[in-house]
Amino acid sequence: MTGTVVVDAMGGDHGPAETVAGAVRAWREHGVPVLLVGREPLLRLHLDRLGATAGDGGGGGGGIGVVHAPDAVPMAEPGARAAAGTTSSLVMGCDLVRQGVGDAFVSAGSTGAVVACAVRAIGRAEGILRPALAVALPSLAGGAGVLVDAGATADPTPEMIGQFALLGAAYARVVLGVADPVAGLLSIGSEPGKGNRLARRAAEILPGLPVRFHGNIEGHDVLAGAVDVIATDGFTGNVVLKNVEGTVRTALAMVAAAGIASPARLAEVAARYDPRTHGGAALLGLKGTVVVAHGSATATTIARACVVAHDLARADVATRITSQVAAPLATQPVP
Amino acid sequence: MTGTVVVDAMGGDHGPAETVAGAVRAWREHGVPVLLVGREPLLRLHLDRLGATAGDGGGGGGGIGVVHAPDAVPMAEPGARAAAGTTSSLVMGCDLVRQGVGDAFVSAGSTGAVVACAVRAIGRAEGILRPALAVALPSLAGGAGVLVDAGATADPTPEMIGQFALLGAAYARVVLGVADPVAGLLSIGSEPGKGNRLARRAAEILPGLPVRFHGNIEGHDVLAGAVDVIATDGFTGNVVLKNVEGTVRTALAMVAAAGIASPARLAEVAARYDPRTHGGAALLGLKGTVVVAHGSATATTIARACVVAHDLARADVATRITSQVAAPLATQPVP
Repeated sequence: MTGTVVVDAMGGDHGPAETVAGAVRAWREHGVPVLLVGREPLLRLHLDRLGATAGDGGGGGGGIGVVHAPDAVPMAEPGARAAAGTTSSLVMGCDLVRQGVGDAFVSAGSTGAVVACAVRAIGRAEGILRPALAVALPSLAGGAGVLVDAGATADPTPEMIGQFALLGAAYARVVLGVADPVAGLLSIGSEPGKGNRLARRAAEILPGLPVRFHGNIEGHDVLAGAVDVIATDGFTGNVVLKNVEGTVRTALAMVAAAGIASPARLAEVAARYDPRTHGGAALLGLKGTVVVAHGSATATTIARACVVAHDLARADVATRITSQVAAPLATQPVP
Repeated sequence: MTGTVVVDAMGGDHGPAETVAGAVRAWREHGVPVLLVGREPLLRLHLDRLGATAGDGGGGGGGIGVVHAPDAVPMAEPGARAAAGTTSSLVMGCDLVRQGVGDAFVSAGSTGAVVACAVRAIGRAEGILRPALAVALPSLAGGAGVLVDAGATADPTPEMIGQFALLGAAYARVVLGVADPVAGLLSIGSEPGKGNRLARRAAEILPGLPVRFHGNIEGHDVLAGAVDVIATDGFTGNVVLKNVEGTVRTALAMVAAAGIASPARLAEVAARYDPRTHGGAALLGLKGTVVVAHGSATATTIARACVVAHDLARADVATRITSQVAAPLATQPVP
């Protein structure tokens, strides 16, 4: 496998200006073969501007390829409508992965649309109810906690949250090298029985699943490093992910404004939680590798997302993760 | 009104050792009349240790009073069971406020138990569906955003979230002096239609309510200062509140660990988001004043919560807030 990364060149707030530059950088600086999907004349203009030549990027010997897709999915478009189309860069990009022309897919499009298109075109892995986004958040202790679901499934069932914990634990094992990951359930009290209906029911299911379950954790535990996996629904997870990013920015800006340290000296800490530097979130539970980059992705973000997607595909992470989850689930009682 | 504050002396992780010390400090340093409710012999031991004398604290000329309550509500006890009791410091304390012996109630007990007991003993204000916890979070711009509900009602209806926005706006006007507060709905995309089912439905209701509605905001907007009120369900709100507190701690600890600034120099920024210094959250939508302090409350927290509760009661904030919410709601179509 070459680890060719298909890039939705029309996705994100900034479109091809950033996506093409990011893809070119991934190829030039990291040797990642990329296949750009979008309006071909526009993409070729951007490639020319960068002095890059589109050749045989797909499936073959590497480089940068271009596949024409006439349409782009607007950021506000509902996922179901996006997935019903056939001519968008999003749908055509996912199709290229399903066909095996590419080995991974990267998009900075709206999360809802990427998830819907990926599920339809690439498909859920055997036994997986819904996909989930995983983001590794650096923790104070030095490791990272895998927040899952960070926004793929806004209204999961309790059983789905149980699967998210398994997917997150498999991600921690395969990607982060954690031997025996511990999963916590995000709730509003550490005692059993605290939470909303959804979390309370998930807390009843989790002890029966094949994962080391720590019990409930709270909002202040997310970065504390007590657990390797932070399992939650995609609504709460997405709010928390963005809240971490915004709170780090605010706290550091307050430190700078108080004259305690210069922004330049704080930049290293800021970068640890900057969505533009970590590249993107892995969409787990599919038959292929998909990385969702932040909507405000710059060329740096896209380049990083391509490297992450390339590495995930080459290590066959999607298959290894879902097999770890599906095998024990097959022996579980049907929910 | 003397603004006598009834203190649940048995509440919180540390119990009377901290609650009594905090109440004594509120009286000695701020002249707040306090009435301690709990196991009388135990409370008198703690008062003796502090060189304080319990006299006529309730209703009369100030000072420190003691009312015996034989039982304490454990932190893990479900709210409904706590509210069914009659002899706990929590229930008896709320009763004292209903009877007018005290003017406000402070507890560091479990939020669920405090809410259930306050609703049962003090009662919801006319037209209010459910109470909500309000916390003013300092924002980067210098003001504060009122997060509501921060944990009182974990499973609200969309209509209740609409009321939380109104309660938060009234709090911003009355307590923070914001002339015409702007409310945002916490969700997972700024575009209308993004969110889980609950948030999407709340987003449809809010434009019809008498509040300046900004539309959806996201997790990174919570501290950004773009809105005066952050309306959300009590599950998400509680996770976000604690996530802000934990993330500030982590970011500043990382700054200190990198040798960029000393912990002592960062303490001022840390204190802005430390639940031990801000005292507590106001429980809005009741017929009386209730302040819920953090479960890990120290004497400093309790003293601060007593001052906040005293000020809220003296300014008759509960009545002013609920009248601002109830009057326009009476003209709204019934949900």
